[in-house]
Amino acid sequence: MLLKLEPGGPLPVYRQIQDRIAQLVDEGSLGAGAHLPATRVLAEQLGVNRSTVYRAYQELWSQGYLEARPGSYSTVRARRRAAAPAPGRTEAQFDWAAVISPAAQAAHDGTRRLARPGARGPEPGVVDFASLAADSALCPVDELTRSMRRVLARRGRELLGYGDPAGYRPLRETLARRMRVHGVSVTADEILITNGAQQGLDLAVQLLAGPRRAIVTESPTYALALPLFRLRQVAVRGVPMRPDGLDLEALERLLSRQRPALLYTIPNFHNPTGITTSQAHRERLLALCEARRLPIVEDGFEEELKYFGKAVLPIKSMDHGGLVIYLGTLSKVVFAGLRIGWMAAPRECVARLAAIQRAGSLSGNTLVQAAVDDFYGAGSYERYLRRVHRVYRARMQALLAGLAEHLPARGVEWTRPAGGYTAWIRVPDQPAAREAALVDAARREGVLVTAGSLFFPEGADGLCLRISVSGTAEPHIAEGCRRLGRALAGVLGR
Amino acid sequence: MLLKLEPGGPLPVYRQIQDRIAQLVDEGSLGAGAHLPATRVLAEQLGVNRSTVYRAYQELWSQGYLEARPGSYSTVRARRRAAAPAPGRTEAQFDWAAVISPAAQAAHDGTRRLARPGARGPEPGVVDFASLAADSALCPVDELTRSMRRVLARRGRELLGYGDPAGYRPLRETLARRMRVHGVSVTADEILITNGAQQGLDLAVQLLAGPRRAIVTESPTYALALPLFRLRQVAVRGVPMRPDGLDLEALERLLSRQRPALLYTIPNFHNPTGITTSQAHRERLLALCEARRLPIVEDGFEEELKYFGKAVLPIKSMDHGGLVIYLGTLSKVVFAGLRIGWMAAPRECVARLAAIQRAGSLSGNTLVQAAVDDFYGAGSYERYLRRVHRVYRARMQALLAGLAEHLPARGVEWTRPAGGYTAWIRVPDQPAAREAALVDAARREGVLVTAGSLFFPEGADGLCLRISVSGTAEPHIAEGCRRLGRALAGVLGR
Repeated sequence: MLLKLEPGGPLPVYRQIQDRIAQLVDEGSLGAGAHLPATRVLAEQLGVNRSTVYRAYQELWSQGYLEARPGSYSTVRARRRAAAPAPGRTEAQFDWAAVISPAAQAAHDGTRRLARPGARGPEPGVVDFASLAADSALCPVDELTRSMRRVLARRGRELLGYGDPAGYRPLRETLARRMRVHGVSVTADEILITNGAQQGLDLAVQLLAGPRRAIVTESPTYALALPLFRLRQVAVRGVPMRPDGLDLEALERLLSRQRPALLYTIPNFHNPTGITTSQAHRERLLALCEARRLPIVEDGFEEELKYFGKAVLPIKSMDHGGLVIYLGTLSKVVFAGLRIGWMAAPRECVARLAAIQRAGSLSGNTLVQAAVDDFYGAGSYERYLRRVHRVYRARMQALLAGLAEHLPARGVEWTRPAGGYTAWIRVPDQPAAREAALVDAARREGVLVTAGSLFFPEGADGLCLRISVSGTAEPHIAEGCRRLGRALAGVLGR
Repeated sequence: MLLKLEPGGPLPVYRQIQDRIAQLVDEGSLGAGAHLPATRVLAEQLGVNRSTVYRAYQELWSQGYLEARPGSYSTVRARRRAAAPAPGRTEAQFDWAAVISPAAQAAHDGTRRLARPGARGPEPGVVDFASLAADSALCPVDELTRSMRRVLARRGRELLGYGDPAGYRPLRETLARRMRVHGVSVTADEILITNGAQQGLDLAVQLLAGPRRAIVTESPTYALALPLFRLRQVAVRGVPMRPDGLDLEALERLLSRQRPALLYTIPNFHNPTGITTSQAHRERLLALCEARRLPIVEDGFEEELKYFGKAVLPIKSMDHGGLVIYLGTLSKVVFAGLRIGWMAAPRECVARLAAIQRAGSLSGNTLVQAAVDDFYGAGSYERYLRRVHRVYRARMQALLAGLAEHLPARGVEWTRPAGGYTAWIRVPDQPAAREAALVDAARREGVLVTAGSLFFPEGADGLCLRISVSGTAEPHIAEGCRRLGRALAGVLGR
């Protein structure tokens, strides 16, 4: 058998062997029942390690090219018609653009502009104030590995089957207990486990709003909520954020004219602005929504990332009338990739949310839910949280100090968050249109920031940026602020 | 109800209807609990299109004027007029029933009757022909544990962060290679990883169909597809199943009258009937859909569970025009709880499906996807599949032998599946209404079966049952058939 290898090529050698043999089978040069050379023989012939050939054969076998006989991968298997990837299709292609739903297209257009968290790290030497994801360098991989091993050993068989669409019961109990720590009195029956807070928001919208209904958000708000709202074809009414939270008078005026399906609010470390509302603001907001019979969807995505000052309890903790649906998530603290979020809501909502979840994906990932429950139960979560609190508090302090030192003194405002990862910079007397130039100037200076206009349901109010400390170690933060200050000064001519 | 319309007036007709009814409610002429005429009736009375009345009713629902009951917007709701904010907070509980969307309520009502796979095992001594989930007794927990440990050790930090919404790239490559074994020519870019095939179906519906669009299914079809279609507010047109697959002439007649958004079909080991269509049937179906420009969603949920006879390639393998979206899943083979499914579809679809996925839950579970990829790569999947093939083939043989021996000879039909887990029993000359008595009689005899009517989008065609061998070891199958035979004989008096 003649195989040409490219030792310095882009593909590993085993893969080259594998692909070449697959090709010979696909094109019929090697028919069913043909014998491949023994690994030793082919290895000598090609001048490669025997384990390299072994690996290639193993891959071929796992793809169904070779007969699977213990100890031998040497016989080409009788295959159904083998399909090679079509190089160029000749027949008339179906016109998908003509049939794709407007909602799906809107979701596509709406997400395209938004960076994917953790999609790719910045170049070396660049300060990343753009990504908003718990720092993977702090990730407690070993503790999770131990939790995973324990649950697989104890209950693996059961955890690998279909689970309860509302989530793994012991984790629901654990999360209900954690909610009680934040003053929210719920039982496990009032907890639904979701694929992150994003799915929680989606479920809440599906529960309460149909196409053409309106929902109310803060303006600015969480950027990735906007394509979700477009996917669900709901109209978004933005209520301006003030330094103390959403403008309650503006909300009241809006509610006197319209009857929206829900209010989506982020009272703690608001994304993007970093603003936390006061107890008094939360009480007034709740009273207003109760009077107007407007359900509240409270996004507590960074509830446990408070660094400074007195804790303010979630709106849900004051919710005696039961009109608040609370969204929680592990993702902004740790293990974003495990997609563990939850909703705390009245039982009748949870039953319907679980039904939507079941209709859409049968059940969640029980194994992962059990591993996370073990992680909480073993105290690993608490230990981790204490550790990262110190780290992120120091980063936020460095950021606030850096902004004060390096940002132009005149006409530039920024928020002073008491927790979370993000702060918000605003130049009120400049148009949002200059934002692209500013983001570019920052990139040229070596600091990545996020354009503020992405967060507004309608137009942006002034020239805005979001900056995040989640991806940058404390020693680099001052330098990031210096670069950002230079970029701002350059663009503003100040 | 007397409504005066101004056909040439400034307001659209639906809006005139809506406003007039709202006024009647507001002034008290229509009180809580009053019934509005059916849309058809009012449309005739007013001389307008039925969809116009439907739209008016939907708007009234969204404003809180009407009760939200699935399939009906006909009852005036008890309302509390929106008033100025109350001075003191009311302790009255929020009325969720008044605000939950009809779609969410329909999903809730639609899933409630359906047993959850693996929700609870039967009593000891009872034969379980009801559950449809890979037998957990065969689950290769140790191999998965090894895969999980390997990927956590090698890339844990990265795998625990946010991932690509389209799925973990190496697994997409692995699945593309596996699709090629089934004659489907796709690259990794044409694979999207989903939370099981259920989410794949949901994404396909969201991609192609909006509220009030129609979709076509086999009748009977997969029971849990029906609440999903109700959640997405699409209308379902069932095309009868014949012994050789869906009735192509009936489909053709349907397509000459309507232009549905998609066809949902299960060509292999159809759920519930167990029927596999021939190559010729698949070719005719594809040609028909190509001519009518109707996208096909092909559910290959048990593609790799063929036990007898010659393999028939998926419709997707013949899809040169690119109008087939293929749904695959691991769940019916192994690890249902890991929620690993995939879609194979043209690249432009995958991009939009990934956007919907991202808008709804940011990303999938990267760690689990990597562990499953390792499980494939290590050959564990192939080894497991060979092992369970022998087991399930023997079960299906036992079932077919048991049915032939124990079912009443006269007037009872059943299918002879070449793979998968389910067979379908039908008594054509008996009404579906006797089904509850039959399921009860079977339970009293000590065998669990699934009522056939659950699988029909419209009414059931005769007295039908689904039976599944996935949860019952081979030695008990004959006894299950004996009990079922007794139950049938008792109910039918044969």
